[in-house]
Amino acid sequence: MSYASIARNDVPVEMMSRDEFEAAIRAVGAERYHDKHPFHKLLHGGKLKKEQVQAWALNRYCYQSAVPRKDAALMSRVHDVALRREWMHRIIDHDGFGDEPGGIERWLVLTDGLGLERDYVMSMRGALPATRFAVEAYVRFVREEPLVVAVASSLTELFAPKIHKERISGMLENYDFIDETVMAYFKRRLNQAPRDADFALEYIKQHARNRDEQEACIAAVRFKCDVLWVQLDALYNAYVEGHIPPGAFRPGETNV
Amino acid sequence: MSYASIARNDVPVEMMSRDEFEAAIRAVGAERYHDKHPFHKLLHGGKLKKEQVQAWALNRYCYQSAVPRKDAALMSRVHDVALRREWMHRIIDHDGFGDEPGGIERWLVLTDGLGLERDYVMSMRGALPATRFAVEAYVRFVREEPLVVAVASSLTELFAPKIHKERISGMLENYDFIDETVMAYFKRRLNQAPRDADFALEYIKQHARNRDEQEACIAAVRFKCDVLWVQLDALYNAYVEGHIPPGAFRPGETNV
Repeated sequence: MSYASIARNDVPVEMMSRDEFEAAIRAVGAERYHDKHPFHKLLHGGKLKKEQVQAWALNRYCYQSAVPRKDAALMSRVHDVALRREWMHRIIDHDGFGDEPGGIERWLVLTDGLGLERDYVMSMRGALPATRFAVEAYVRFVREEPLVVAVASSLTELFAPKIHKERISGMLENYDFIDETVMAYFKRRLNQAPRDADFALEYIKQHARNRDEQEACIAAVRFKCDVLWVQLDALYNAYVEGHIPPGAFRPGETNV
Repeated sequence: MSYASIARNDVPVEMMSRDEFEAAIRAVGAERYHDKHPFHKLLHGGKLKKEQVQAWALNRYCYQSAVPRKDAALMSRVHDVALRREWMHRIIDHDGFGDEPGGIERWLVLTDGLGLERDYVMSMRGALPATRFAVEAYVRFVREEPLVVAVASSLTELFAPKIHKERISGMLENYDFIDETVMAYFKRRLNQAPRDADFALEYIKQHARNRDEQEACIAAVRFKCDVLWVQLDALYNAYVEGHIPPGAFRPGETNV
């Protein structure tokens, strides 16, 4: 425990040590990351029909396609060239650059492989409203919250490699409509996510200046877990329970 | 003249043809671009003392260092991967990427060459408040205005090659404290600016959908000319007329 402290309602609140801070961030993942969601267990366990995997992939496209806007929103607030240079490769990872395709293109290879029309996926008109609201809440959060808190919201990447590994092996094993090619997105993220997460974790440990900022960073990881969880809740409700809202993707009507 | 038109106060206002629209954009530069400013004539004509060139360079650093934030703000609003990929190289041009230094680094080579301490320049604490307000007005404009209008505000680059050429030859010729090395920033911009301007001009010609949007694009170029002009007005007032505001750079006190 370090002894830097601030007063809150006359009660001094001590800053967490760096190790305590990191442990608190990781505890959010242990409790709330979407690998705990029933929809993921169904997805990885081979329990979904192809149409349900289609619904997952086309909804998740909304999230993928928003990530570079989120990262650009963050960069637009950064006055430090070195931090912008570090953050820029995230945009390149997703959008690609020059001849290099990015993660969004690799995601479309997945939706291609699932038999979905690209125009339909990219229009996002079959996506669930709850998905789109959650995704745009994330973009706004990063644009509006204090910078260190915005950086913290990326830290669900700490928990991503485990879920990506489970997804690659579980989906390849369990679905005959999934092959190595379409899983390229997740394979690439196995290297990208830990590098990014390590940088962001170190950044917030250095830049959260008091207990309030540390707590706001932890809350940002909770918020981000909510953004991910909401998307799976909406999928579960629509495509497992069968309550598909008006206008959303209906299996077999992918080209409308 | 095309015949697409909209009603404004019951008076139909016809859209400009693409050629008329481009001509109107270019007319703004002919009237208002900062190559018309007396400070620039002094700068290029070799009429300034070294301290005055220092003042120009350290104030202009504020602008240079804000440009990638402006471009990231634009990208954060773009839903089209192709447009983001096109815009991304602007950030890389200024921030650099990997081993490649960017325009901001090249600007610091210029301020180094002028004998200014980097820490002092980068702190911006000697910059004129009017400079900083103008620069931040530009970042906010790009973040808040409609996308096509935000893109249009970059179009002062149409007028930049002429001023850069004048600056390179005029400054090399007229100042013994200026050499080829420190002019690297402007030489690089001779290639970068026209490519960017051509793209942005084509974009607004395609995407301004009615006369109001065309007029807003023209106003955006006027606004951007104001952003540039204000900076030279402030320099002229402080360092030619001698009205240096409190806290601003005073020649000979560069390390404070």
